[in-house]
Amino acid sequence: MTEHQPGGHMAAEIDQQPAIFADLVSRRAEIAAVAEAIRGRAPRFVLFAARGSSDHAALYAKYLTEVLLQLPAGLVSPSTTTLYGARPDLRDVLLVTVSQSGGSPDLLEVTQSARERGALTVAVTNTPESELNGVAEMSVDVGAGVEHAVAATKTYSATLLALYLMVDAVRGGSGAEVAGIGELARAALDGSVDPVEEAVRRYRFVDRVLTTGRGYSLPSALEAALKLAETSYLAARAYSGADLLHGPVAAVDAETAVLAVTSAGLGGDALHDVLDVVHGRGADVVAVGSAAEKAPAALRIPVPETAEEVAPILEILPVQRLAHGLALARGGDPDSPRGLNKVTRTR
Amino acid sequence: MTEHQPGGHMAAEIDQQPAIFADLVSRRAEIAAVAEAIRGRAPRFVLFAARGSSDHAALYAKYLTEVLLQLPAGLVSPSTTTLYGARPDLRDVLLVTVSQSGGSPDLLEVTQSARERGALTVAVTNTPESELNGVAEMSVDVGAGVEHAVAATKTYSATLLALYLMVDAVRGGSGAEVAGIGELARAALDGSVDPVEEAVRRYRFVDRVLTTGRGYSLPSALEAALKLAETSYLAARAYSGADLLHGPVAAVDAETAVLAVTSAGLGGDALHDVLDVVHGRGADVVAVGSAAEKAPAALRIPVPETAEEVAPILEILPVQRLAHGLALARGGDPDSPRGLNKVTRTR
Repeated sequence: MTEHQPGGHMAAEIDQQPAIFADLVSRRAEIAAVAEAIRGRAPRFVLFAARGSSDHAALYAKYLTEVLLQLPAGLVSPSTTTLYGARPDLRDVLLVTVSQSGGSPDLLEVTQSARERGALTVAVTNTPESELNGVAEMSVDVGAGVEHAVAATKTYSATLLALYLMVDAVRGGSGAEVAGIGELARAALDGSVDPVEEAVRRYRFVDRVLTTGRGYSLPSALEAALKLAETSYLAARAYSGADLLHGPVAAVDAETAVLAVTSAGLGGDALHDVLDVVHGRGADVVAVGSAAEKAPAALRIPVPETAEEVAPILEILPVQRLAHGLALARGGDPDSPRGLNKVTRTR
Repeated sequence: MTEHQPGGHMAAEIDQQPAIFADLVSRRAEIAAVAEAIRGRAPRFVLFAARGSSDHAALYAKYLTEVLLQLPAGLVSPSTTTLYGARPDLRDVLLVTVSQSGGSPDLLEVTQSARERGALTVAVTNTPESELNGVAEMSVDVGAGVEHAVAATKTYSATLLALYLMVDAVRGGSGAEVAGIGELARAALDGSVDPVEEAVRRYRFVDRVLTTGRGYSLPSALEAALKLAETSYLAARAYSGADLLHGPVAAVDAETAVLAVTSAGLGGDALHDVLDVVHGRGADVVAVGSAAEKAPAALRIPVPETAEEVAPILEILPVQRLAHGLALARGGDPDSPRGLNKVTRTR
């Protein structure tokens, strides 16, 4: 058995993503079958249940649901079920439970309860044999393979893609927008090596990091903050570009690093006004995404352009590399951050 | 005209809360009339739209809705409407828009659009003559009076109480749990002076603050982090007690201040396990709330006990005092943090 290289698992798993994406797109028919069943039940309201990184994937899917399916949607607060015993009437509701491990007891309870109360339940997991898959009426297999690093990378991005494929199929789409996502992911990783290294040098001694994004890129900003917090122990915090101007902008100054996720489209356009303000306050802005080139920023990490609703699948890739590189540079092991276990058993 | 005393407005507005609560309870019949109309329409789903502090009030109301009304609920992402033009089918949906000023253009657009798409729309504002009140079908007046300080205090807590009174009336309640909330608020403020001063001394030079809470106290933890960020420029970040163990606990060490909001009840009980872990990692825990006395913590800020679903209205009061005192101790003026305006015009 060879000695463990710090961050070796995380680096390998980041690198597997292009192949995982291509494989998932090739399994589109499986997901379309689940989508067909959803169409048959014609839900009027969609709920998502998730925790941690999966919660950011769920937020992405909530945007897709509202915009592409024109259905109202919400994120479940599991504690209203698990702590307070809420048993709402869920007829005409689709509940999508997103969990890499499929083993979180609170998500099991939420899913079981929702099914009993009339919801159509779909589990999106990376572990097809999990308890959650047994509890939910239907399942989507994210198919990212075993994840050894504690910090989720490939399971996060593959979950985004699986959710996109599902929602796209529910609206009758053919997956055309993600047909070449594997190659684009390769290009996103290979094309960002130098600026990511520069960003690692830049953030080597940073204390305060804010991340921000608007629209579809908000989940990416949330995931970026979580990834930096859990691998590099940074007090990183994410804000919607809109909320940032409401109050937290007071905390932005020349000692603040701002990681801005900005992709070509309406969300990226709307973020530019926010970045003008933040940049004007002297903050060090690093912009990542397909609209990074146009952003007021000190450093830009480009990503290939796609349809805006697909951008979150790619724009997170250099951010994962940044989290990995920064953890190593600061002397940590991003594969097993102190205090973390792979499955957290909360109720 | 007298010279402005730094933090004078914020201190005065914090102190007005007991009287505002008593007044709002005395106007319960107005709110019950709105609730009666809601009952008549028998909504099947409830959506909340808000930004900033009001978003935390909306999250509180989402919990109330799920637990007390047994209805599925969600928080609207305004950008899906304002940026991406989503126009979901909202028949059988109640949309509650929460906005202190009633002037946010994005919330106006969300409310207008929801009304056109079949939702019953209710505005909860502190400005009865606002544009939002004109756009929504019904309105609830929070009645906190003009707020001069930029950091929301009395409008936040009064909004919580107004939302509680509304939801309680929809379920047929009589407001009994908040009958004495004015006196209890007075006791919460007067009884926490010394420990709040001690917490200010303790946090004078702090860099990293996490706030945490579970169940009904999660919105309080979110609001606490925002208040510290906008008045003292701290990189404060809130986590649900459940999410904290999923990953961010890696960032908790002996240099981390943890402000834990914990009130008597199921949420406070569930947070104790989390605090055991955090305390065990050497973090400096300050516990605030009616269950603070039982929490593993270095400092405890007590608050009178109430029904758990009402606790958020009280437990935020000493936190506001803490934010105020800390901003002054660090040389700032919490009435007008740098870079903030009262109404933020995002789209």
